[in-house]
Amino acid sequence: MKCALVAADGAVLHRETRPTPRAAGGRAVLDALLSTVVELGQKATAEGHRVRAIGVVVPGVIDAEHGTVGAENLEWVGTPVLAELQAAVRAAGSDDLPIVLAHDVRAGGYAELRHGALAGTTNSMFLPLGTGIAAAMVVDGSLVSGDGYAGELGHSKFIYGDAAELCACGQWGCLETVASAAALARRYTARTGRTVDGAREVMELLAAGDEDAAAVWQVALTALIDALVLYTTLVAPTRIAIGGGLIGAGETLLQPLREGVHARITFQREPEIVAAVLGDEAGCLGAARMAWDRADEEEKNV
Amino acid sequence: MKCALVAADGAVLHRETRPTPRAAGGRAVLDALLSTVVELGQKATAEGHRVRAIGVVVPGVIDAEHGTVGAENLEWVGTPVLAELQAAVRAAGSDDLPIVLAHDVRAGGYAELRHGALAGTTNSMFLPLGTGIAAAMVVDGSLVSGDGYAGELGHSKFIYGDAAELCACGQWGCLETVASAAALARRYTARTGRTVDGAREVMELLAAGDEDAAAVWQVALTALIDALVLYTTLVAPTRIAIGGGLIGAGETLLQPLREGVHARITFQREPEIVAAVLGDEAGCLGAARMAWDRADEEEKNV
Repeated sequence: MKCALVAADGAVLHRETRPTPRAAGGRAVLDALLSTVVELGQKATAEGHRVRAIGVVVPGVIDAEHGTVGAENLEWVGTPVLAELQAAVRAAGSDDLPIVLAHDVRAGGYAELRHGALAGTTNSMFLPLGTGIAAAMVVDGSLVSGDGYAGELGHSKFIYGDAAELCACGQWGCLETVASAAALARRYTARTGRTVDGAREVMELLAAGDEDAAAVWQVALTALIDALVLYTTLVAPTRIAIGGGLIGAGETLLQPLREGVHARITFQREPEIVAAVLGDEAGCLGAARMAWDRADEEEKNV
Repeated sequence: MKCALVAADGAVLHRETRPTPRAAGGRAVLDALLSTVVELGQKATAEGHRVRAIGVVVPGVIDAEHGTVGAENLEWVGTPVLAELQAAVRAAGSDDLPIVLAHDVRAGGYAELRHGALAGTTNSMFLPLGTGIAAAMVVDGSLVSGDGYAGELGHSKFIYGDAAELCACGQWGCLETVASAAALARRYTARTGRTVDGAREVMELLAAGDEDAAAVWQVALTALIDALVLYTTLVAPTRIAIGGGLIGAGETLLQPLREGVHARITFQREPEIVAAVLGDEAGCLGAARMAWDRADEEEKNV
């Protein structure tokens, strides 16, 4: 869990990383989240700050109406995260505070939109390519929610025919099965029998001229180009910011994506394709930004 | 050109259809539009009504900032439709009126959203399957514009490999190449050498057990299911309303789409798949609704 105390101007006063006790089950993960929030609040107070709002982002589907979260990775099913957070903050003796609960990729997109690679855009996309793939969509000036369900470009089908593999989500041929960092490593190993140290090693092999790495990479690029062209056709972004672990590849990734999209589109508006700039802090910073915006909003309404 | 005089409550006081002089070129089409607007205004006045606003929808890309339209079918390239309409209305002696310029499919979607099959939804899609295919997207409660570019699901790729055909848009394997009404007829003829009277005859042949019609139909259904699943995964609609000429097929079209989407999705929220209800008047009624809404808005701001 990436955690931070963030000032109104976005300055990070304190950052820390805590383990997520996944193996101990969903209740343990929730307890770890609650104590993190309470302890960070106490730390802020001890250092003379006033906590104005709390932002929590999770890799799951958020039911905004009920404040509940479904997150397969965390063993959360309809878990009442918002109510538990409110109770924990109250039990710790704090005043009621605005608490924002958001999706991690959407929060990252919000941070990129407000302070990062998507600043100034009204139609754009943040697409982190990490263990998984999901999109934060900015449409007509707003970050899309779709009641918490939108943006699952990683679970859209771009591999057809016999090449389509079964995805962890139960569908076949998802973008994530070939173009996530995890997929690159897995597919290289499946092809060669050699285990590799993640996508990073596949990229090193690619740079060294390894033909199997090149083949695995080409499949990922082709599917990504298909996905970017489709997104461009449907939602008309002016800028697409690629993030996640794979953006470590830099221009090796971006240049063929730009060329591929440019070659494929005809009547569509061509998007800039750039690197996201906030790195793996984007979700955490987005949570803070959302919390500050909520605090400002509530102040205005008082 | 479908034209109407529509009251504030949506009642259609007068409707008429006028020819679009396409063969005479873009200027002639524009002149026909201008005289239609002026003459309908005069008719309304003569019948004792006060015209409050004008809504014009076109099958093209609208630059909202400049009021210009690009529409291949009409030979319009950056054509200043809004300024020409304003000048024509002024020359006819009318007061300055709010004029709304919108995309035909998006206007149809707006009508379905306000008074039709999408009423009450906040995330949904109107997908007319006619000569062409485009989507009106409702996301987080608003009709998506994407600066006039969004919604081109018909020009998204769902046919891969050797089966992909060149689309009129210059791309390969677009949904429109297999699933539009025009494509059904064209593909049946290409397969059999027999000319048919549009998609309607292909549907009749299908009902009569014609195997070639069944094959052409199956390709269309498969691509449509791919498109609906992808849209559902990316934008999370709760309802999808199918319109256009092909919805004449009714349950022959809807039932396999429902079954196909149901069988394919896993974690996604399943959308209702229904028939649009406003038929080929949707665009015209949507234009009127948008015009009334603009008039109400301007009145509020005075």
